[in-house]
Amino acid sequence: MTDSILWWGSGSVPCWRAMLALEEKRVKYDGRLISFDKNETKGPDVMKYNPRGEVPTFVDGDVVVNESMAICDYLEFKYNDQGNRLLPTDVKERAVVLQRQYEALNLFKKGLEQLIYELMEDSPDLQDQETLKARLQVLSDELKLWEGYLQTSEGYIAGQSFTMADVMFFPLVAFLVRLGLQLKKYPNINKYYENLVTRPSVKATWPPHWVDSVGKDWLKDA
Amino acid sequence: MTDSILWWGSGSVPCWRAMLALEEKRVKYDGRLISFDKNETKGPDVMKYNPRGEVPTFVDGDVVVNESMAICDYLEFKYNDQGNRLLPTDVKERAVVLQRQYEALNLFKKGLEQLIYELMEDSPDLQDQETLKARLQVLSDELKLWEGYLQTSEGYIAGQSFTMADVMFFPLVAFLVRLGLQLKKYPNINKYYENLVTRPSVKATWPPHWVDSVGKDWLKDA
Repeated sequence: MTDSILWWGSGSVPCWRAMLALEEKRVKYDGRLISFDKNETKGPDVMKYNPRGEVPTFVDGDVVVNESMAICDYLEFKYNDQGNRLLPTDVKERAVVLQRQYEALNLFKKGLEQLIYELMEDSPDLQDQETLKARLQVLSDELKLWEGYLQTSEGYIAGQSFTMADVMFFPLVAFLVRLGLQLKKYPNINKYYENLVTRPSVKATWPPHWVDSVGKDWLKDA
Repeated sequence: MTDSILWWGSGSVPCWRAMLALEEKRVKYDGRLISFDKNETKGPDVMKYNPRGEVPTFVDGDVVVNESMAICDYLEFKYNDQGNRLLPTDVKERAVVLQRQYEALNLFKKGLEQLIYELMEDSPDLQDQETLKARLQVLSDELKLWEGYLQTSEGYIAGQSFTMADVMFFPLVAFLVRLGLQLKKYPNINKYYENLVTRPSVKATWPPHWVDSVGKDWLKDA
């Protein structure tokens, strides 16, 4: 019995962040899987708590928090001493985690956002091979930055333990792989990915529809 | 004498967030104004600490934090008991602040991002009045959500005191006004704006180039 309910969709990076934080903090919750295909984010259950009609939508007793990063910060604060600490209490260590945590948003925003919408809509812009190549180059440049960070870090994206920076970074990398990214071109990211894939919180939250369906090959040349 | 240096650009919303947090936390810092026109974000001073060549770039002794939200979180954590508290210690109050803090990103992302790039590039898409109207409607719908939040809040975006949610929300509203948004159509946001404009931290960080130049009228119909 729990007062915490999370509405989530399979394969959604923001939902995955929230679920990773819930698992890492060892919070019991009632997960309600919605269907994007059936437009259930606009259904009455979600809309009751989230007028934007989006997931994640998270209810914790009389608290409602819906933005994925807000959910993560909220859980870390409320369950400070429970489960794994995601934000170090040492100020310098925390600075590194905070920097990488928010910087990870660039991997989507700069590296993927425009391209993914164009790919999903089969945009005529991408008929031009040069345009596609340029977009993939931007993604590749972004990945090279992270490849460099992982060269000097110690197994995780911001040091030697799993932190909020990994909560933000890992789902994006897994999403890129699902879209066809070949990690052998990025050996440090590949090692990181292979290490994290077997982590209990990651296994417990792996997008279920990814298990028995194939992804795309869109990013094979990135 | 201070060990804290912030490189910033006038009119940059992310820079403004960092500066508001510095002022609210009463942190002494050496502000270094860069010119976007002269491409100084790619100059050696910034690039030394921020390989992305962006501002804000923040150095605090041997700590480097460059993402604006990371800077704000870092300052709130390091200067927990100094200046104004930006994140409440009560878990329920904090949940409200965190929700609005991150939700404010939607005001830019959903309401303005596409439109502002099209306007700046004088995009042919906007020649079609229906397209322009549709874009302004999306912005207006987003603003109406916030107008509603301010109806039930108590003067600030997440309650009765200035918090991290205001650090995120206020600079965006001011930017919209600079682009021609007529706040009389949004009386709660207008009241909020008029109240905050005289706040010492806001006055101290007002974009200097806004003082003696006029803005745009792009959003006058939003």
